[in-house]
Amino acid sequence: MKTGPLALTLGDPAGIGPEIIVKAWAQLRQTGPAFLVVGDSQSLASASGSGASIVRRVISPDEAAKVFPDAIPVLDIPLRAPVISGQPTSAAAKSVIQWIETAVGLALSGQVCGVVTAPIAKAPLYEAGFAFPGHTEFLGELTQATSFDGARGPIMMLAVPGLRTTLVTVHEPIAKLPSVLSIEKVVNAGLVTAQALRRDFGIEAPRLAVAGLNPHAGESGTIGREEHDIIAPAVRALRDLGVDATGPAPADSLFPEEMRSRYDAALCMYHDQALIPVKMLDFWGGVNVTLGLPIVRTSPDHGTAFDIAGRGLARADSLIAALRMADEIATRRAA
Amino acid sequence: MKTGPLALTLGDPAGIGPEIIVKAWAQLRQTGPAFLVVGDSQSLASASGSGASIVRRVISPDEAAKVFPDAIPVLDIPLRAPVISGQPTSAAAKSVIQWIETAVGLALSGQVCGVVTAPIAKAPLYEAGFAFPGHTEFLGELTQATSFDGARGPIMMLAVPGLRTTLVTVHEPIAKLPSVLSIEKVVNAGLVTAQALRRDFGIEAPRLAVAGLNPHAGESGTIGREEHDIIAPAVRALRDLGVDATGPAPADSLFPEEMRSRYDAALCMYHDQALIPVKMLDFWGGVNVTLGLPIVRTSPDHGTAFDIAGRGLARADSLIAALRMADEIATRRAA
Repeated sequence: MKTGPLALTLGDPAGIGPEIIVKAWAQLRQTGPAFLVVGDSQSLASASGSGASIVRRVISPDEAAKVFPDAIPVLDIPLRAPVISGQPTSAAAKSVIQWIETAVGLALSGQVCGVVTAPIAKAPLYEAGFAFPGHTEFLGELTQATSFDGARGPIMMLAVPGLRTTLVTVHEPIAKLPSVLSIEKVVNAGLVTAQALRRDFGIEAPRLAVAGLNPHAGESGTIGREEHDIIAPAVRALRDLGVDATGPAPADSLFPEEMRSRYDAALCMYHDQALIPVKMLDFWGGVNVTLGLPIVRTSPDHGTAFDIAGRGLARADSLIAALRMADEIATRRAA
Repeated sequence: MKTGPLALTLGDPAGIGPEIIVKAWAQLRQTGPAFLVVGDSQSLASASGSGASIVRRVISPDEAAKVFPDAIPVLDIPLRAPVISGQPTSAAAKSVIQWIETAVGLALSGQVCGVVTAPIAKAPLYEAGFAFPGHTEFLGELTQATSFDGARGPIMMLAVPGLRTTLVTVHEPIAKLPSVLSIEKVVNAGLVTAQALRRDFGIEAPRLAVAGLNPHAGESGTIGREEHDIIAPAVRALRDLGVDATGPAPADSLFPEEMRSRYDAALCMYHDQALIPVKMLDFWGGVNVTLGLPIVRTSPDHGTAFDIAGRGLARADSLIAALRMADEIATRRAA
């Protein structure tokens, strides 16, 4: 049985995190899923417009679940200095990281059923010494010591109605792709994806479509060798391992509606190959899911949007979808 | 005033070219635009189902325009050996190339108002010594000696209702992108695009959105340097030259409907960045337009589809759209 609410990290306090959390709570307070914000209660109170009254400091996930219909429950880990919306500062970095670590700790210890993360920005974290390309890789590190039965991530999935994509590489510069891609990485991403489609999404016989890297998927080796040397052997290995994988397919032909019905997830070689189609299908409601971890984790698929932060313009669609999907996955894993 | 019909090359005779030409003619014979097929009349007769009766050998573009309502006019340049649908052979390569050269010659000499090309496959042409990555580059070479007033292509544009993308690089392996991209190439592609939007598409004050190369458009230089070193300087140079260019923008945020309304063309750094969104918006009807040449040239945005060739399954939507767009551009250029 699923236990506890979701933990929701505040993300960069200068970004749109606080305000979309307030909006998400307003929409979900009656229906759930319930969540516990891990972050600075003052930032949340500032974002709430109606002041501190709808923000409630709690000391446990259990308490959070009870409070949720009436107020936004916060496990308060205060910022060391106040932060102004739209003005990111590396002074907040230690707190931002601590909120993530705390939420993951709650999940690993079984007090919350999953972690949802509001957006962070890399630049201010890097200035403070953060060494990971993003949430996904950091969560992989934080959960590494915990055992997990099966193929191990973290592998990033982006999900919108009608399309799931998973990524072999995430935040690599294009220049590094040829040296970073390997048969092992493609195979592992494929195994993690197939396993998650079964366990987390309830698809009994998942079908994977594997994208090529180059134009026309290399056109028989005349436009790049990665399809021949890496991706095709990986597809064969996946099939040998019992995964219903096809490809490498030309990426430009993989995402029209006629093609999407033929697979349950498209395994993509790089960030924009996966993100362009996802954002075209649903610019506002995409969900980022981390596959192959011992904890459930989702997030919205957008960034901190410092340019509009604090003005009440940001939409909570993606965060709400992320909370719902985390809850569904946690329920399925616990069944 | 626009003169003559369009020249339409047969493309690879083992591909779907012949059959989609027959379908396009059936749909356009009454309304136009009229076209003259440059290729092997026997391949066309075989594809017509109803036999040779609807294929008519002609000796001039003028004659073709008259014949068009009653039969498919062909400037017959026969294959040296018969070709079977779905079985590409390098034995046909010399003819395939000759058809393209002839069509371009007709356009350069003003006998036809533009060239539309049915798909070719690179592998059989390469075996026969063809040295170009595709039609686009070959057409650039064939028209090089002819003067052209303005920024010079060839630059590839893909056009569907609601989106035009143009490409700085086309058939480069991903591994080569960082060494192939340059400020000069991005600027030239931007100038050719802006000029074509005005001249060929009738947009008086065209707006260009320039895509980044890396995830998150490099995220302030933390994920790759090309945005900082190449693309941003190119955007500044384009603005200095009077082009309304913006960017570099994260490619995954550039193609949702909300964003597409903000520009007239998206300048893309590589093939799939431009082709994924185009094919998602219109899998069947996309048009490939070659910009910055002294002749008008369009083509369907799909390949030879050897796997379904000769079975009557191929759709002519894209070819029909290409013929119509070539006619529109020719009319606008001649005005």
